[in-house]
Amino acid sequence: MCPNAPLQSYDDVLGAISVRHLNGYFVDVLSGAIYPACVNFYDGKIIRIDQRPTAPDQYILPGLVDSHTHIESSHLSPYRYAEQAILHGTTSVVTDPSPVCATTGLIGLEYMVEAGNTTPLKFHYTVPSDIPGLGWKEVRSLLSRDEFVALGEITDYEGLIEEKQSIMGKIEVARQLGKPIDGHAPGLRGFHLEQYIMSGITSDHESTTSEEALEKHKKGMAIALRESSSNQNLNALLPFARKNKHMLATDHLRSRDLIRGHIDNMLHMAVEGGVDPMQAVRAATLWPSQHYGLKSGALEIGTPADMTVVSDLHSFKVLETWIDGDLVARNGELLYLGSPPKLVEATFPMTRLDQIDIHVSGRVAPVKVICIGSDGEITQEHEELQVEDGRILADTSRDILYMIWVDPAHNWSIHVGFVRGFGLWDGAIATSEVHKFGGILCVATTLTNAQDLINEIIVAGGGSAAILGRDLVLLPLPIAGLMSDLPAKEVAAREFDLMSMTRNMGCLMNDPFLILSSLGTYLPSTFWAERTEMSVGAR
Amino acid sequence: MCPNAPLQSYDDVLGAISVRHLNGYFVDVLSGAIYPACVNFYDGKIIRIDQRPTAPDQYILPGLVDSHTHIESSHLSPYRYAEQAILHGTTSVVTDPSPVCATTGLIGLEYMVEAGNTTPLKFHYTVPSDIPGLGWKEVRSLLSRDEFVALGEITDYEGLIEEKQSIMGKIEVARQLGKPIDGHAPGLRGFHLEQYIMSGITSDHESTTSEEALEKHKKGMAIALRESSSNQNLNALLPFARKNKHMLATDHLRSRDLIRGHIDNMLHMAVEGGVDPMQAVRAATLWPSQHYGLKSGALEIGTPADMTVVSDLHSFKVLETWIDGDLVARNGELLYLGSPPKLVEATFPMTRLDQIDIHVSGRVAPVKVICIGSDGEITQEHEELQVEDGRILADTSRDILYMIWVDPAHNWSIHVGFVRGFGLWDGAIATSEVHKFGGILCVATTLTNAQDLINEIIVAGGGSAAILGRDLVLLPLPIAGLMSDLPAKEVAAREFDLMSMTRNMGCLMNDPFLILSSLGTYLPSTFWAERTEMSVGAR
Repeated sequence: MCPNAPLQSYDDVLGAISVRHLNGYFVDVLSGAIYPACVNFYDGKIIRIDQRPTAPDQYILPGLVDSHTHIESSHLSPYRYAEQAILHGTTSVVTDPSPVCATTGLIGLEYMVEAGNTTPLKFHYTVPSDIPGLGWKEVRSLLSRDEFVALGEITDYEGLIEEKQSIMGKIEVARQLGKPIDGHAPGLRGFHLEQYIMSGITSDHESTTSEEALEKHKKGMAIALRESSSNQNLNALLPFARKNKHMLATDHLRSRDLIRGHIDNMLHMAVEGGVDPMQAVRAATLWPSQHYGLKSGALEIGTPADMTVVSDLHSFKVLETWIDGDLVARNGELLYLGSPPKLVEATFPMTRLDQIDIHVSGRVAPVKVICIGSDGEITQEHEELQVEDGRILADTSRDILYMIWVDPAHNWSIHVGFVRGFGLWDGAIATSEVHKFGGILCVATTLTNAQDLINEIIVAGGGSAAILGRDLVLLPLPIAGLMSDLPAKEVAAREFDLMSMTRNMGCLMNDPFLILSSLGTYLPSTFWAERTEMSVGAR
Repeated sequence: MCPNAPLQSYDDVLGAISVRHLNGYFVDVLSGAIYPACVNFYDGKIIRIDQRPTAPDQYILPGLVDSHTHIESSHLSPYRYAEQAILHGTTSVVTDPSPVCATTGLIGLEYMVEAGNTTPLKFHYTVPSDIPGLGWKEVRSLLSRDEFVALGEITDYEGLIEEKQSIMGKIEVARQLGKPIDGHAPGLRGFHLEQYIMSGITSDHESTTSEEALEKHKKGMAIALRESSSNQNLNALLPFARKNKHMLATDHLRSRDLIRGHIDNMLHMAVEGGVDPMQAVRAATLWPSQHYGLKSGALEIGTPADMTVVSDLHSFKVLETWIDGDLVARNGELLYLGSPPKLVEATFPMTRLDQIDIHVSGRVAPVKVICIGSDGEITQEHEELQVEDGRILADTSRDILYMIWVDPAHNWSIHVGFVRGFGLWDGAIATSEVHKFGGILCVATTLTNAQDLINEIIVAGGGSAAILGRDLVLLPLPIAGLMSDLPAKEVAAREFDLMSMTRNMGCLMNDPFLILSSLGTYLPSTFWAERTEMSVGAR
């Protein structure tokens, strides 16, 4: 009942709401005690937790919190994502909507908020800090809203060091609002790390070693241990986690992984790895909630009755999920009714591409090649490629492939560059999941493959796809070119198809599409040089 | 800077605010860790806590919290009270303004809020639950305000059991607003305790034994350990405190005690008594803040920079007090400028009382006598008293004294009754600090003494006083008849004078004036009978 609803009579006051109960071993993250108890809640809020001589053999935790994720990476709409998160005992997520902002801007961002509100799962958002057209004034108006709990991860390390106004203004705004400022500092150590932190960053989820995490933690950062579809860092960070305050994060989690486990899975891994259960539970509840100022995180009088019931403190098998006093999932079954949200479509070229063509003179062309190291590091090399009929040929023997970007910001003009690292010996892969700059990005062995694949995605209104000869696998992503409204299991199946397809094409990457998406960050700088050297176009 | 202040330019964003630092051993109540650190704060809020190889030999705690008090009992205005609390490292108090409501109603309550805002100390209020004229609708509008964090202690046990609408409505309102409901259940155990708790009560500060506290805690109550001027319960509750989550409270603390110590003193006693320092600090910070939903209680990014710096975790000698990032006290010296608040006067009879007179017939009069046991228990006995010239005589030999109440609700009519337990052999004591019903209450050996003393208080516009022959000691309490705007030390000196005076008069009570005040709760019921038996009046 809304606390501000007008009460006319005493009968109104004594409404129909009644006290509800949940029995089990209560895990008190505030005191560190675990005891058999009855949790009493009322009107969605905790009113009392009384100890009992005995209790059912199950454990009551505060609702689990994912401290940093981009839910778009699951290929699922917020509505579908919530279904899986709730089944795995998650009641709150802190998600950074940068991907949706990259394809559909603020419209996409507001869609995420609206869509998130159609589910019981509590979505909290960080404000993207590195999206073209999102200045400090926009950041300010967004951060002033309750659902935006922090400034999103700041990737532009150089910008910070140079104290670029564009970045420092956003940081200042977040500080004045007393909200955290997420960091993104893979491998940053020593003096440079200090510079980074001093500029205002409060958290980081990119540590790959316990030493790195410990240094960042000691210098004042809140550390999130990451276990994503592309980076599995948790085990390496266990020595750090055993002794220090931390949080748990999934960052980029594909449907194929989400359906198998979420924060519950990380809890199991942590305890299996020797982390004290109370320490692990606090990392999934109290600590992230305190860092991001969430109302949940500890069960106390007046707090929302967000609770996750697990079978034990080792397997962390989720039995029940409660949100605001409602049982929303039990034994793998969802117990709430929601309405799928309306879609937000990304815009694509009205017409299919005609033949992509490149004109250069001479028999050999010097080209720049983007090289992706096995560690994901991006470098650039200069190579020479054969020219046939004025067209530069990719060279699969040297793993130099076409990289084609359809640029939404410049009237869908086509940029062609070259990339090494995907290892395709035939066919092509492409996706409309392109970080920061959006559009469609494709890696291909031939321009024909590229053109066919890009056209498939245009027709589908967005998606990820792979083509090999006549075989085509397409995961349609009609929502903002990033997400699907299909159930997670169906999306996951399509993800597996794409994986095996790319394997057959010779790609050894864990998830080439995630790499492709992340290349978005480098696009304009990368392609500019190419465009000066040759004329590119679709006619 | 107000987060909603309009920012016009980037220069506005990068305001003149700069990061401030505090170095010492940081006591992290969230993780249980203690390490040398630099606490960074900005614009009044924490932005970062970084570990350091070394730190000055001092300990940084979250600001101390008094979880339950009635600041009027200090005889100090909120402004003067705050001075002492801050000097002793307290940054937040949860105070129940029932006393001021008893004398000046909602006007007095709003005065407390207004006056509290003129000091850095963070006053949080509970809404008096047992004040005539404060129904559930008034309670609702008050509880909806942020500064009111709970429903005030519910003393009417019978009313709860009978589920009186007057009380249940208030409890319902508090529940719907998700706010705690303070209890007051001295010695309540077993089934009756369960009834009491089931009706909605969430806390209690009246336990006198560890067994009692443990039972209440197990049944779901938040337990506050009390160390007041009238009840010193802390030592008896240490066995409970060593193992269980709890809070610290001073309830009724006179100036004479407040100037010597506040929560800092309780922390010292607890640790001296074998409570783990982290456990003790949590009881003074994290736990009460969580129970009452206060923003402070743990130092995390974005929380107010309310910090108490102590010399060590045993003596808890307070070195510095910080509130919202400002150093407000250092080494026993206040470092802020405040303006004393305007006064709120209690109304008193326009004219001094003429002779108090009692008319009865016969030579002996049967009277009811209120008896105050050494344990503070109130009983009633029937006695016979001599009558002289139609006037009933008190009998000091049997410790039966006049108890006179000037009733503000009935045109200052005078009620006379009899009381046993004060042990005065001469003179009289009186006060305008009368709980629940207000007015002036006096215990006297002769009616003349009573009249003179009451008149002194009327002239002073409120106060506590004792008279013995020609000697008069008066503590003027012009603010709502309860509080003084004099510095605490001066008020304390006068309190000591009153104490020694009453000792000389033969009273062995620890603080007869606190007993006298608390008798207010029984007034109408007590006196009614007398008034039917005899005619009383001032002519």
